[in-house]
Amino acid sequence: VSITGSAAEAVMDAEVVITMLPAGKHVLSVWGDLVPTLRPGTLVIDCSTIDVESARKAHALAADRNCLSLDAPVSGGVGGAKGATLTFMAGGAPAAFAKAEPILAQMGRKVVHCGEAGAGQAAKICNNMILGVSMIGVCEAFVLAEKLGLSAQALFDVASTSSGQCWSLTTYCPVPGPVPSSPANTDYKPGFAAALMLKDLRLAQEAALATSASTPLGAAAAQLYALFEGAGHADDDFSGIIHLLRGLSSRA
Amino acid sequence: VSITGSAAEAVMDAEVVITMLPAGKHVLSVWGDLVPTLRPGTLVIDCSTIDVESARKAHALAADRNCLSLDAPVSGGVGGAKGATLTFMAGGAPAAFAKAEPILAQMGRKVVHCGEAGAGQAAKICNNMILGVSMIGVCEAFVLAEKLGLSAQALFDVASTSSGQCWSLTTYCPVPGPVPSSPANTDYKPGFAAALMLKDLRLAQEAALATSASTPLGAAAAQLYALFEGAGHADDDFSGIIHLLRGLSSRA
Amino acid sequence: VSITGSAAEAVMDAEVVITMLPAGKHVLSVWGDLVPTLRPGTLVIDCSTIDVESARKAHALAADRNCLSLDAPVSGGVGGAKGATLTFMAGGAPAAFAKAEPILAQMGRKVVHCGEAGAGQAAKICNNMILGVSMIGVCEAFVLAEKLGLSAQALFDVASTSSGQCWSLTTYCPVPGPVPSSPANTDYKPGFAAALMLKDLRLAQEAALATSASTPLGAAAAQLYALFEGAGHADDDFSGIIHLLRGLSSRA
Amino acid sequence: VSITGSAAEAVMDAEVVITMLPAGKHVLSVWGDLVPTLRPGTLVIDCSTIDVESARKAHALAADRNCLSLDAPVSGGVGGAKGATLTFMAGGAPAAFAKAEPILAQMGRKVVHCGEAGAGQAAKICNNMILGVSMIGVCEAFVLAEKLGLSAQALFDVASTSSGQCWSLTTYCPVPGPVPSSPANTDYKPGFAAALMLKDLRLAQEAALATSASTPLGAAAAQLYALFEGAGHADDDFSGIIHLLRGLSSRA
Repeated sequence: VSITGSAAEAVMDAEVVITMLPAGKHVLSVWGDLVPTLRPGTLVIDCSTIDVESARKAHALAADRNCLSLDAPVSGGVGGAKGATLTFMAGGAPAAFAKAEPILAQMGRKVVHCGEAGAGQAAKICNNMILGVSMIGVCEAFVLAEKLGLSAQALFDVASTSSGQCWSLTTYCPVPGPVPSSPANTDYKPGFAAALMLKDLRLAQEAALATSASTPLGAAAAQLYALFEGAGHADDDFSGIIHLLRGLSSRA
Repeated sequence: VSITGSAAEAVMDAEVVITMLPAGKHVLSVWGDLVPTLRPGTLVIDCSTIDVESARKAHALAADRNCLSLDAPVSGGVGGAKGATLTFMAGGAPAAFAKAEPILAQMGRKVVHCGEAGAGQAAKICNNMILGVSMIGVCEAFVLAEKLGLSAQALFDVASTSSGQCWSLTTYCPVPGPVPSSPANTDYKPGFAAALMLKDLRLAQEAALATSASTPLGAAAAQLYALFEGAGHADDDFSGIIHLLRGLSSRA
Repeated sequence: VSITGSAAEAVMDAEVVITMLPAGKHVLSVWGDLVPTLRPGTLVIDCSTIDVESARKAHALAADRNCLSLDAPVSGGVGGAKGATLTFMAGGAPAAFAKAEPILAQMGRKVVHCGEAGAGQAAKICNNMILGVSMIGVCEAFVLAEKLGLSAQALFDVASTSSGQCWSLTTYCPVPGPVPSSPANTDYKPGFAAALMLKDLRLAQEAALATSASTPLGAAAAQLYALFEGAGHADDDFSGIIHLLRGLSSRA
Repeated sequence: VSITGSAAEAVMDAEVVITMLPAGKHVLSVWGDLVPTLRPGTLVIDCSTIDVESARKAHALAADRNCLSLDAPVSGGVGGAKGATLTFMAGGAPAAFAKAEPILAQMGRKVVHCGEAGAGQAAKICNNMILGVSMIGVCEAFVLAEKLGLSAQALFDVASTSSGQCWSLTTYCPVPGPVPSSPANTDYKPGFAAALMLKDLRLAQEAALATSASTPLGAAAAQLYALFEGAGHADDDFSGIIHLLRGLSSRA
């Protein structure tokens, strides 16, 4: 397995090529150069998180060369990469998935076949839209609790075992204390940076605009992360958005 | 134990009085009548979901009579009441909680002491604000997935085991299929009616306004449930808000 | 005319009493003390901007004493007060308005009888909700124009003569240049402070919650001004919220 | 002047070609076919409302053929077209504008040169984002006023002469009565259809996403118009969104 983000020469004899790049235009540019140099039957996997439309165009490039292709974005953040607990969400033909699964399984804890071309990207942005929305909801609840004199631990004890339970609360709690491993305990060092959450929320909004889907809270969450980034917090963990809600000046 | 929402005579010899009423004004009116007739030391429990400020005033009425008092709203919905799996969130002095706990434990699965007077109400509205926000976030994700050609089951499989996991998804999934017991499978018969979710979200917004807490998604969620109620869906389960996002006319 | 925010003695022989106080509770406290000392027939005018419910309670206090009463909040900001170009929005009985009009006309350019008790407050918060929403809309348009390479002057020239025309744009333009008298030209010195806009938007939200009115953009505007205040900008002119949208760090 | 949305043969000898099409992809397709057939120096004007990026690509096509080009979307709605009171917002080189101005002036009341390629589209979507946001703000104010017992006429009288003044209120008032010519008086027959407003708000959001501009109320307005369209009101005048806020069922 060769992992590359660059030159076509490096991969022309490969059986499997994996790319991971910042945005759809980069993937299309790189695949546009390298796919025509591949032998038919080669498997090309893109692990970038990009827009669904570009992912589908990349699949079409591979199909033109009779290559197998898979979009397989990954979730799990820095911790997941270190601990090999990443989840891959894959889109593509069954044959491509069958060939890719054992390879991806070496890098991640879980590999899910979500559907045809682009389905991996779709699953990633839908999941992360829930994540961004629920994280802000959880942060708002902690801020309101503080104002009402309810301790963070008491809110955590109730909500973590009740209908407010969510990953944002029970695994990634945005206040220090209740969940010792959450970034809130290490001054919001990521973890999963706010800038990356904003990127995914914008991809979700692009997809929603392109397909006329109604996503009011997803849209509002994207706007709030943009304000948070605009205030200089792009590199904080995304759970740090609680500072925006509390009043940024209190952090100075 | 006498359960009453009415006359003072019924309770004057009671050791424990429990009320459950629609709004803070009703609780203050009823407690204003009955508390002065109670023997000092009587325990008065209010299981209504009401605003924090009224709850604290009710506690003050009880204190004036040297009664023990507890605000103890409950969550769990119709299913919880039938199956005795309700959760009580209690606010009040430790002595009041100690005396109330065995009584409430007969009716619910779980009784949590959240803090002083009003803390039960605070915990309830903070929890339900997370619930309302995360439910809409989950609905938006399913709507976007549909538009992108990603199946509901595939989204469920990814998100339920990933960072998008939340109670709204894994216990109360708003589309039929993935979670057989969720109201989506019985045409959105509640469960937990949209009108009640709207009531709780409005209580949260009142508390946020009174304390200057920032809750942008909580505010947006309250507005969306108001639009859903305004379109004639007050009695649907609150997960039915997915119809608002899909386009209400498609339900006709 | 005696203007007072304090002691009952000062006003007991007055024919007209005018109060101007920060919030509804202050008005009710002061009127509760002074109204019973007034001679029947005295006219009591409250020029505070307060919640509609408190305004109506204050009118009831006056009615109990057979006094005439008017709620008459004012708009126009610092500039209006200096130039006697204030607008009074009045609620109360026709007789009260008839007696008050010549008095208020000395202080303001315009006095409007909006309806019965509380109608002045209702008009004030409805007007200012439009103002807060339209100002943010105008700021967003200038921010988007900048990003698209469209000059502020070109946007102003189009929108000020087209369907985007509004007071926030043509009288109070949030970028320096097009309207020389707007606070943007003097580093956003108020004018009308962001904290006051936030206060009015919160009064509107309280009224909306109390009456179950749907006001999604009003709610969102209140949240945005809360974030702006939370970031330390309470004393800036409310048009300065364009800095929140552009990215606060750029102001440091 | 030939007006066409179709075949290249029709225009090959034209001095000026004007197109008006639904979306950017159509403009690029049509210009891609016809521009190469034009004589160098021909002026090509696109009066469509499309995305800024496509508009700039269309200009590039014209530049490749040494043609003059202008993006010149138009505002004013059905009434404007009938009465020749349309406004054209134009983007392109000064020479193109100079040649186009007398032609466009025959069709509209006003022709504004907004800047270089794409500036006409940028001005249109920025203006219409203000329009969509301010219209919803005005509708919310009327709904809140109703709930507070303040008459629509009283709110109009105050706001139309105060800081709440905007075109949405004073020219296009969303309740019947105060402005006799507004669509509210003819059962919300457009005028400017909700579907067109939604299209423009989505173009604005696409541009905001592409340029990382913060537009929280613009995003929320787009979501609300999507809910309104989803409820079957695409063909109503855009001021009819007041029905969404009041409760759609009340219209049945």
